[in-house]
Amino acid sequence: MSIEKPYLLFLGDVPDQLAAKTATGVVDWRPDWCVGQTRLEGCKADTGLPDMTIAEGRAAGGRTLVIGAVNPGGVLPDNWVASVVEAIEAGMDVASGLHMRLGSSPEIREAAERRGARLHDVRHADRQFATGKGFRRSGKRLLTVGTDCSIGKKYTALALEREMSARGFDAEFCATGQTGVLIAGRGVAIDAVIADFISGAVEWLTPEAAPDHWQIVEGQGSLFHPSFAGVSLGLLHGAQPDAFIVCHEPTRTTMRNVRTPIPDVADVIDLTVRHGRLNNQDIRCVGISVNTSALDAAEADACLRQLSERFDLPAVDPIRMGVLPIVERLETEFPRP
Amino acid sequence: MSIEKPYLLFLGDVPDQLAAKTATGVVDWRPDWCVGQTRLEGCKADTGLPDMTIAEGRAAGGRTLVIGAVNPGGVLPDNWVASVVEAIEAGMDVASGLHMRLGSSPEIREAAERRGARLHDVRHADRQFATGKGFRRSGKRLLTVGTDCSIGKKYTALALEREMSARGFDAEFCATGQTGVLIAGRGVAIDAVIADFISGAVEWLTPEAAPDHWQIVEGQGSLFHPSFAGVSLGLLHGAQPDAFIVCHEPTRTTMRNVRTPIPDVADVIDLTVRHGRLNNQDIRCVGISVNTSALDAAEADACLRQLSERFDLPAVDPIRMGVLPIVERLETEFPRP
Repeated sequence: MSIEKPYLLFLGDVPDQLAAKTATGVVDWRPDWCVGQTRLEGCKADTGLPDMTIAEGRAAGGRTLVIGAVNPGGVLPDNWVASVVEAIEAGMDVASGLHMRLGSSPEIREAAERRGARLHDVRHADRQFATGKGFRRSGKRLLTVGTDCSIGKKYTALALEREMSARGFDAEFCATGQTGVLIAGRGVAIDAVIADFISGAVEWLTPEAAPDHWQIVEGQGSLFHPSFAGVSLGLLHGAQPDAFIVCHEPTRTTMRNVRTPIPDVADVIDLTVRHGRLNNQDIRCVGISVNTSALDAAEADACLRQLSERFDLPAVDPIRMGVLPIVERLETEFPRP
Repeated sequence: MSIEKPYLLFLGDVPDQLAAKTATGVVDWRPDWCVGQTRLEGCKADTGLPDMTIAEGRAAGGRTLVIGAVNPGGVLPDNWVASVVEAIEAGMDVASGLHMRLGSSPEIREAAERRGARLHDVRHADRQFATGKGFRRSGKRLLTVGTDCSIGKKYTALALEREMSARGFDAEFCATGQTGVLIAGRGVAIDAVIADFISGAVEWLTPEAAPDHWQIVEGQGSLFHPSFAGVSLGLLHGAQPDAFIVCHEPTRTTMRNVRTPIPDVADVIDLTVRHGRLNNQDIRCVGISVNTSALDAAEADACLRQLSERFDLPAVDPIRMGVLPIVERLETEFPRP
């Protein structure tokens, strides 16, 4: 799917900033794609973009209304449905990362059919994929992997795309989760694909490319997570990465929503290399990305230094200091012509 | 899903025996569940069961018409649809392992709604699963894994169930593929589950059980197959097996439908143990099941002896000689009270 830009971001009437993190993610990484925000009475979230009505957003060039907030109940409340229908009537497409499909609202479905609007339910993969083949494809790929879920894989990939582009690399973020798809304007929510087609969907997402083009693939889950390791392995095989980065949070002891201990970074590197060699013999780790938000500055420095020395790899907190040391490592490992 | 027994097996008018391998599999492993077969004019397949009309099959006690053959085009031809509708009108449910859903035929859907018949599309997993949790469950589990797809994992699991039951074990085959589901009368086609729920679906399929109850779980794919390794890993995590058997075909050089070399049995054992320990520290390999059909008797003996000595494990061809040596190994490794 490819979502028409620019976006008008819809925040509804959510009660806090966290509920609008999809919208803030889009603004953080793709400010040029956003014409403004639309909020309903009582909304407590704010992306900092100009407030506008749907008509004003359309007049400002908005092509797609992006549902950038999550209603606590997980469904579309009636007053949100009215806004979505208004956007469709104004000539816009609509994109949503909610579990509930936009078309499951009869009002929205009928309006979209009448106006020919496209409804993007980015959490659902409606297209058919082939099974993965494992053949080597031209171009270069980097994958962010993790010691757990929700540990900075998307953020790290986006930070790398930005820093690599600034250094003159031809780099492209490839989204594999619903927020990532809204930020990239295309992609596949890989955890929503039928199990037989995980690696095939990633092969579709990261096709053959120019030799110096880098696809920066957003990782999902962890090879060590008892819920999602199958997704992580299919993603690794499909992406056939030349390089990978391990994302880590040093104060977590067990993985999210289960009792399984967080694995050691060494085990993640070792098993990622072992599985990755199936489709790319040259796979290597090029850095460690650490979320040190639970540490003070001195602790964070010590943690990063220790990881860097132990693995002889750049170790960075992408929020505190950016990812430049990892990009420099990439330049050394994969010299450009 | 749980399919009502006994079955009336429908073979349609397929042109050869291979096209009816689902029906022959059911007859091989569950002869007591089958009242007979129904064939159309020109059918060249034969399960050896008595031929009967649908009315006769129903009168003989048949509760479910099982589509036991595959039409070359992958769809339900009109003359098959008529038989399915006739079975529904006679008061039977219908089960199918075809890609095409039974209910996608308006005649079948309307007849099923009118008569309250259940339509089992065993290749599609329509129920919702939770994500996998990885918590240890009581009871014992054995998983068949493989160096490739289509290498004897289902056959080995069924042979084990039969031999273990004969030796007094409390053993139960747990199906993870469409043919297996028709043979077991329940199960999940795991490759058709949404990627996020692979291990969760297997946890549902293999719940807590009595301490000496053995769930014999049908494996899928291979950890080394570039198309399906994600399915295999989620299945391994969900099954949290105490014991596993490696299924192998010694003359294959590359995996099915791809160019990837067949892995060494040692690598399959090593990586299965490594991943399996996430949810079960005691996981161990208890045997090797080899399809030696491409070898003559002397070659087969040499192959099995060499594998057995190399890994200090029983190595058998389940078709040539059965799986008793593996069951004896299980008795030694997991003594019964």
